[in-house]
Amino acid sequence: MKTTVAIIGSGPSGLLLGQLLTKAGIDNVILEAKTRDYVLSRIRAGVLEQGMVDLLRKAGAGARMDKEGLVHEGVNISWNGQLHRIDLKKMSGGSSVMVYGQTELTRDLMDARLDSSAQTFYEAQNVQPHQVDSDQPYVTFTHNGEDYRLDCDYVAGCDGFHGVSRKTIPEDKITEFERVYPFGWLGVLSDTPPAAEELIYAHHPRGFALCSQRSLTRSRYYIQCSLDDKVEDWSDERFWEELKKRLPEDVANTMVTGPSIEKSIAPLRSFVVEPMQYGRLFLVGDAAHIVPPTGAKGLNLAASDVQALYCLLKEAIQQNNPAALERYSEVALRRIWKAEQFSWWMTNLLHDLSASPFEAKMQDAQLAHLLESVAGQTLIAEQYVGLPYELKED
Amino acid sequence: MKTTVAIIGSGPSGLLLGQLLTKAGIDNVILEAKTRDYVLSRIRAGVLEQGMVDLLRKAGAGARMDKEGLVHEGVNISWNGQLHRIDLKKMSGGSSVMVYGQTELTRDLMDARLDSSAQTFYEAQNVQPHQVDSDQPYVTFTHNGEDYRLDCDYVAGCDGFHGVSRKTIPEDKITEFERVYPFGWLGVLSDTPPAAEELIYAHHPRGFALCSQRSLTRSRYYIQCSLDDKVEDWSDERFWEELKKRLPEDVANTMVTGPSIEKSIAPLRSFVVEPMQYGRLFLVGDAAHIVPPTGAKGLNLAASDVQALYCLLKEAIQQNNPAALERYSEVALRRIWKAEQFSWWMTNLLHDLSASPFEAKMQDAQLAHLLESVAGQTLIAEQYVGLPYELKED
Repeated sequence: MKTTVAIIGSGPSGLLLGQLLTKAGIDNVILEAKTRDYVLSRIRAGVLEQGMVDLLRKAGAGARMDKEGLVHEGVNISWNGQLHRIDLKKMSGGSSVMVYGQTELTRDLMDARLDSSAQTFYEAQNVQPHQVDSDQPYVTFTHNGEDYRLDCDYVAGCDGFHGVSRKTIPEDKITEFERVYPFGWLGVLSDTPPAAEELIYAHHPRGFALCSQRSLTRSRYYIQCSLDDKVEDWSDERFWEELKKRLPEDVANTMVTGPSIEKSIAPLRSFVVEPMQYGRLFLVGDAAHIVPPTGAKGLNLAASDVQALYCLLKEAIQQNNPAALERYSEVALRRIWKAEQFSWWMTNLLHDLSASPFEAKMQDAQLAHLLESVAGQTLIAEQYVGLPYELKED
Repeated sequence: MKTTVAIIGSGPSGLLLGQLLTKAGIDNVILEAKTRDYVLSRIRAGVLEQGMVDLLRKAGAGARMDKEGLVHEGVNISWNGQLHRIDLKKMSGGSSVMVYGQTELTRDLMDARLDSSAQTFYEAQNVQPHQVDSDQPYVTFTHNGEDYRLDCDYVAGCDGFHGVSRKTIPEDKITEFERVYPFGWLGVLSDTPPAAEELIYAHHPRGFALCSQRSLTRSRYYIQCSLDDKVEDWSDERFWEELKKRLPEDVANTMVTGPSIEKSIAPLRSFVVEPMQYGRLFLVGDAAHIVPPTGAKGLNLAASDVQALYCLLKEAIQQNNPAALERYSEVALRRIWKAEQFSWWMTNLLHDLSASPFEAKMQDAQLAHLLESVAGQTLIAEQYVGLPYELKED
C-alpha cells in the first residue's frame, strides 16, 4: 500500500491535516488505534481561535460549526467576588473565539472525510513508523488480523502525548521540557444552560474555577482540586456546592445545576519536545506539546501545527521542494512557546498555588493592575483569541 | 520641645515630607541618627518617575534637577544579543522618567531645608517614639550628650528598613510579607560616560546586567552575582569583562570603562508590612517596604508614600479632620503592591533564576511576546514611568 502522507491518529489534528491535504489533492491515509466511537467519546476542549475556525472552513468542515457554534466576543475573570469582563473583540482589534465542542468538530471532520475518497483505518493495531530518517519511510500496522505496510513520503504523528510517533524518535535527537503542576482539574459536564453568556475564569482563595460551555444547553465546569482527590469523593452535590463558593454571589445564586453526565479529574502539565521533527516524521499537536488547559490553547495549538505542516507539505510536494519542511519545527515552536507561556502564566495567575503569602499578594496585585489597565486586558485578549499564524498558504 | 509632625530620618522621604509640610505651614522636626555627610554618601537610585519630579518641584527643591537631570523617554531591554527599545513616552501616553541621582536630590532637599526655619537634629542618638497609640505621642532622643523629649501630634517613620519606627509597632499589630531572592547585584560607580543614551536592562544566560547612569559623565553598572561573591573577588577588570559579556556586542565594543569609585554587593529582597500605620505613627518608604531594584521603584515608592501622607496630614491638621489619616495605609498599599508586583515580575523575567530548563523557556517566550506586542511594551512602560497617585492635593 502506498500514499504520500501517512497520518497517525484520527483526532482533530490528524483529521484536519488529512482533510486539508485531500482538498489540495495530496493523497493521505489515516491510521487510528481506536474505534470511531471511542475517539468521539473523548470530552475535550471547546473554545476555538479564529485561525482554527478559518482552517475548519477551508477543510470543508465548518458548516455545522457556523450554524451551531457560539461566537464569544468577551471572557470574564472573576476576582474579589466580582466579574471583570475582557472585551476580546475590542481589545484584540476585531477577533473573537468560537465555542464549539471538540467532539462536534471531530464528528464534522470525520463526516467530511467519509464524503471524500481518503482512506482511514480504525482499530489499526501495532502502528509503527520505520526508516523515517530515510527518503523512503513506511508504517506497519495490523488491521482485522492482517499485517500491512504503508509506504509513504512523509509521516505526520498526530497521535497524542502517549502515541508511538514521538517514541519513534531516538532519545538523543530530542530534548523534552516539562512542568507538572501540583494540582488537578475536576471537570463536570451537564445538560444545563451555562452559568453566564460568556466563560468565567475564577480566581478564589478556595482555588480556581472555570465556567465553560459547549452549547446553550450543555455546560462544562471545572474546579481546581488536589491530586489526591478521587472522582468518587465528589458527589454532584458536593461539586456544585464547591463551585458556587468560588463564583461571585449573583452568578452562584442564579446558576442552574443538574446531574453530571461526565465527571473526571485531569492533571495539569506543560510539556514541549524540541525539535518536532526527525527525518520525514513530523509531530503535530499533543504528540509534541501539552499545555495546562487554563487559556484554552491545547486544541488551537494542534490547529496551528496543522496549518504550518500543511503549508510546508504543499510546498514540498507540489513545488517539489522537500527542503521547505526543514522549517516546520522552528516555525511551529515559535508560536507554541508563546502559547505555552500564556497557559503557564494564566495557570500561575489564577490558581491557588499554596505558595507563600507574598506570592498570593503578587497574584492579587497582578490581577488588580491587569484588570484595570487597557494594556493588561489587551495582553490577555490578544493571546486568548490566538496569535497570528506565521505561514500563509500560497 | 514641641512640633506638629516629628519626622524620623532625613533620607529623601523624610526630607521631602518635611519640605512639603513646611511649605504648607505645618511645623515639623527631623531627627536623623547619622551625620549629614553620611546620609549624602549613600549611593542609591537615580531614576525618578514623573510624580516624584513634580513633588520635588512642589517642595521647592527641583531647580537643579530641572537643570542637570536627564529626561529619558525610552528604556532598552537587551535580549538575544539585541537592544529592544521601549518608547516610554509613546507607550505611556506622554510620560517619561528623569535620571537624577538620589545623592543629588537629597542634597537639594537638605539645602532647601536649610533655607527654611525648619529644625533638623543630625546625630540624634537613641531616637524612640512613645505612646503613638495615644493622642499625645512624643519622641525621645539624645543629642550632643543631652536628653530631649519632642512632643508632637504625629510621627512619620522615614527611617528605612532597619530603623526604629517599624520596630515600635507591636508585632501582633502588623503582618510582614517577604521574599528573599537567591542572588545579588554587584554594582560599580565610575566617572565614565554612560554605555548608551538610555538605560539598558539585559537578560543574558550568564545573568542579568544593568547599564544605568547618574549624569552624562557618571555611570552606574550592575551585574547579577552570587550571594557568596565577595567584592574583593571582583577587580575592576573582571567586572568590566563580565558586564560586557552580558551586553550586545556593539554596546560592549564601544563602551568606555574606567576605575570604579564605588563597588558593592547588595542582596535583593521584596518586603511589605501591613498596615503601615499604628495609632499616630505612619511608616513611609523603606521603613514599610523594600523592592528589588529591577524597575527602579524603591525611591519612587517612598515619594508616593510621602505624597499620600502629606495630603492626609494636611487634611487632618488644616481641616481638623484626624480621621482622614485612617486611610493612609490603605491608599499607600494599593500603589505599593502594584509596584512590588512590577519589581518582582521584572526581577523574575530578567535574571538567571537557575530554575528548570522549562522556566528558562518561559522567560524567553515571555520576552519574545512582550517585546513584539504593543500591549506588552505598554504594560511595561506604564508601570516603569509610574502608576498615577491616588490622592490629589486640594
